[in-house]
Amino acid sequence: MKQVYIYDSTLRDGAQAQGISFTVMDKLKIVEALDDFGISYIEAGNPGSNPKDLEFFENVKKIKLKHAKIAAFGSTRRVNVSVEEDANVKSLLVADTPAVTIFGKSWDFQVLDILKTTLDENLRMIYDTIAFFKKHNKEVIFDAEHFFDGYKSNREFAIKSLQAAYDAGADCLCLCDTNGGTFPSDIQRITSEVVNKFGIAVGIHTHNDNGMAVANSIIAVEAGAVQVQGTINGFGERCGNANLCTIIPNLQLKMDYSCIPEENMAKLTPTARYISEIANVIHDERSPYVGKSTFAHKAGMHADAVLKNTVAYEHIDPKLVGNKRTFLMSEVAGRSAVLHMIRAVDSSITKDSPQTALILERLKELEHEGYQYEGAESSFELEVRKILGKYHHFFKLREFKVIINEPSLEGINSSAMIKIEVDGQEEITAADGDGPVNALDKAVRKALERFYPQIKEMKLTDYKVRVLDSSSATAAKVRVLIESTDGREVWTTIGVSTDIVDASWKALVDSIEYKLIKDTHC
Amino acid sequence: MKQVYIYDSTLRDGAQAQGISFTVMDKLKIVEALDDFGISYIEAGNPGSNPKDLEFFENVKKIKLKHAKIAAFGSTRRVNVSVEEDANVKSLLVADTPAVTIFGKSWDFQVLDILKTTLDENLRMIYDTIAFFKKHNKEVIFDAEHFFDGYKSNREFAIKSLQAAYDAGADCLCLCDTNGGTFPSDIQRITSEVVNKFGIAVGIHTHNDNGMAVANSIIAVEAGAVQVQGTINGFGERCGNANLCTIIPNLQLKMDYSCIPEENMAKLTPTARYISEIANVIHDERSPYVGKSTFAHKAGMHADAVLKNTVAYEHIDPKLVGNKRTFLMSEVAGRSAVLHMIRAVDSSITKDSPQTALILERLKELEHEGYQYEGAESSFELEVRKILGKYHHFFKLREFKVIINEPSLEGINSSAMIKIEVDGQEEITAADGDGPVNALDKAVRKALERFYPQIKEMKLTDYKVRVLDSSSATAAKVRVLIESTDGREVWTTIGVSTDIVDASWKALVDSIEYKLIKDTHC
Repeated sequence: MKQVYIYDSTLRDGAQAQGISFTVMDKLKIVEALDDFGISYIEAGNPGSNPKDLEFFENVKKIKLKHAKIAAFGSTRRVNVSVEEDANVKSLLVADTPAVTIFGKSWDFQVLDILKTTLDENLRMIYDTIAFFKKHNKEVIFDAEHFFDGYKSNREFAIKSLQAAYDAGADCLCLCDTNGGTFPSDIQRITSEVVNKFGIAVGIHTHNDNGMAVANSIIAVEAGAVQVQGTINGFGERCGNANLCTIIPNLQLKMDYSCIPEENMAKLTPTARYISEIANVIHDERSPYVGKSTFAHKAGMHADAVLKNTVAYEHIDPKLVGNKRTFLMSEVAGRSAVLHMIRAVDSSITKDSPQTALILERLKELEHEGYQYEGAESSFELEVRKILGKYHHFFKLREFKVIINEPSLEGINSSAMIKIEVDGQEEITAADGDGPVNALDKAVRKALERFYPQIKEMKLTDYKVRVLDSSSATAAKVRVLIESTDGREVWTTIGVSTDIVDASWKALVDSIEYKLIKDTHC
Repeated sequence: MKQVYIYDSTLRDGAQAQGISFTVMDKLKIVEALDDFGISYIEAGNPGSNPKDLEFFENVKKIKLKHAKIAAFGSTRRVNVSVEEDANVKSLLVADTPAVTIFGKSWDFQVLDILKTTLDENLRMIYDTIAFFKKHNKEVIFDAEHFFDGYKSNREFAIKSLQAAYDAGADCLCLCDTNGGTFPSDIQRITSEVVNKFGIAVGIHTHNDNGMAVANSIIAVEAGAVQVQGTINGFGERCGNANLCTIIPNLQLKMDYSCIPEENMAKLTPTARYISEIANVIHDERSPYVGKSTFAHKAGMHADAVLKNTVAYEHIDPKLVGNKRTFLMSEVAGRSAVLHMIRAVDSSITKDSPQTALILERLKELEHEGYQYEGAESSFELEVRKILGKYHHFFKLREFKVIINEPSLEGINSSAMIKIEVDGQEEITAADGDGPVNALDKAVRKALERFYPQIKEMKLTDYKVRVLDSSSATAAKVRVLIESTDGREVWTTIGVSTDIVDASWKALVDSIEYKLIKDTHC
């Protein structure tokens, strides 16, 4: 198996994404996760551009890494400044990392129009900066910014920029598609030429502006590149960087390259989710290999076929990447998909058990009312448990009242009073909030915490409203989906009603009961 | 320029996506949008699998289409059933569309293990079904399901499945990467072979399970495919289908193929967003060409360079696809875009009028709060009128209180009390309803009818809720869209708040005031 070195830039190029901003502590956690996963290089920041990054480099030295080398990222020296006196170059040295990545220009237009210097001075900037870090015994990667656009504009100059890096002793020449507009056929042809010409390690760094960053990376590897730069979940500016969570399994599971230790591949999905969590962005559930929808089957026919033989509609076994197969419960779901769920609760049930027919009947009824269990399997599991007698109510609602006031008092316009009962004991309490659902949510948790302290572990992470049959306007039925987590698991529940508060209440109750059932293994 | 025929399956394969479920009305709206955009084929459903689809096919015939042919989608006849007696085949005929797409198996394993029939019977199923529709003068596309996996498993049989379709008179042989696991190099080689062998139109249908659906489609076109099947925004089961919103501009703006009428390319972004809106899914703001982040520049250096010369960090001009450049640090709004709206209210205003700057400022503020006026132009018109002094409030809200009771009284759980003022006269009244918004809607109309009897003519026809930033769960901001009509005109208004009742109230007030302004031509 040929080795491909994975170079992660989540902490640097990934942090350019709209809405992403890492603290020093976030960055340290991500370094540990990436190292544990088996990434070869972690590009951790640009110490010259960001004072937070210097604090980070101070701290990251204390982490004992198993696989990864830390790389500091920075520009070639400035125009007409000696390399020893360049502030950015000096801060890269202060960062004290085993690897340094230097980006420089290889597109003539960028040199002349943006940097406003001569092509020769630009080549000297590349040479001087790389020679400087080689003299300081660093492993040096040269990121040739805009390389493909540069090659198409002025091939000779683009190649000369690589030659300058090569002559200065660069360990790797990384070809960057900075604007993300290059096509696979060009990537193939140009990467091949560079690989053959220089005979040292070549890397590829792509962006997804034409939707082909992953394919471009794969094609570059086929053309001889041995380093792939990208980010976890494809985080990055504009449309993002090449998504390493797609590239790693593509190369290692399907092309016989080695990227990470084989035994770590099942950490892919948890690592991807963990880093989304730290970045505080909603995880892309449709993304290859690592989403919740990635191995979700909806069409009845597909779901039936998958149950017969998983290879029928799956390109790989989801377990290989730490993900799992799900069957979306829906009007088109076949009996076999439902059975799969039932048997997860009680494995003694077969498709001919009378309970199976009862559950299917109930499912039809609920779907007719507007319930839709795809993506809300936890609520469906509760229905199954009710019919199988593997359920009990953890609390009973006596009553609630929610009052909405306009004008509002100090911006909080809703207050909820709730009375619940647990094993004969009553609790009455109240909470206020932004809107009736928020107030009710806070009130019911407050009431239950006395009886079930583990409620404190859970939080709602997503809340979705869909209006069914919207032509009856404000009296239309609404479907509410609530996603919750307790840090270990994520579950989604559903409620349907003509009243959004009532629909939310149903989903909320299911979410709480699911958590309590899960914890007591009832 | 060579023509590539775009075949859209948003309404069929797209509807397999987790969380997507179209009503008949949704589907008709999408057909109109796709036709207006210039799509060649619209695969609109599988009449055999879904009774809702038959109602749709009845209605779609009444739409006069400019560009698109409607295709009905269905399977080859069942095993050992004569084609004339196959219920699914009959329903495809009932759908009465100019084109019919028949999917059949081309992977030996699927025939033997899933269908459990012989390879020869499968070839007859393909032949019979296609011959049947050719006899009925349909344009017939053959979707060779799992073609690439089939080719790799048993090349001879895979090719024979195409041969059966060819012999029966199929107009197009579409090669499907159903599991989405095929790599570009295989797509290239195999598509080339098929194109050369049959000499008729070849199509490509890919899924995104390896993150390369777009690249695979592009590479198939380079290998000679002339039809590309995919979906708007890449909607589809698991990781989605090939994203037409990426493929169309890739082919037409960068490769000199023609897919849609040239003058329609700027409709790409609005069409993509409109269809996300109808599907009620959060638009992917990072997706190539059509997202809000797509041309957003964050890095100070990048943003500076882009200001110097846009080609520095942009692979195309965002205007070409109806999108716009944004700078995340220093927002710059498009002045001329809004101007024609302003001039509809007051034609004396020019782009240099001080009011134009004020309105742009206010628009930026409101967008920052989560307002989005695409599809809610009536609310925007009211904002414009406020700034131009062409507005007066028709009533003043003194206060309202809504009380939600659980358990409910006779199924009606909400009651609203409202006090309003019109020209110094107060009116207080109350109404009850299904949920707080319905109660409030009824109460405010009741209070106003005494002053403005024309309120009786109007009714709400649609009510949509979208949660923004859903990760703050029940305290997240919601955006409410209300569509109203008075029988002569339809208008849509918007409200945004962390509280759904408050957001609905804002949209409701706009809707009523728009009606009153419209009638008094103020």
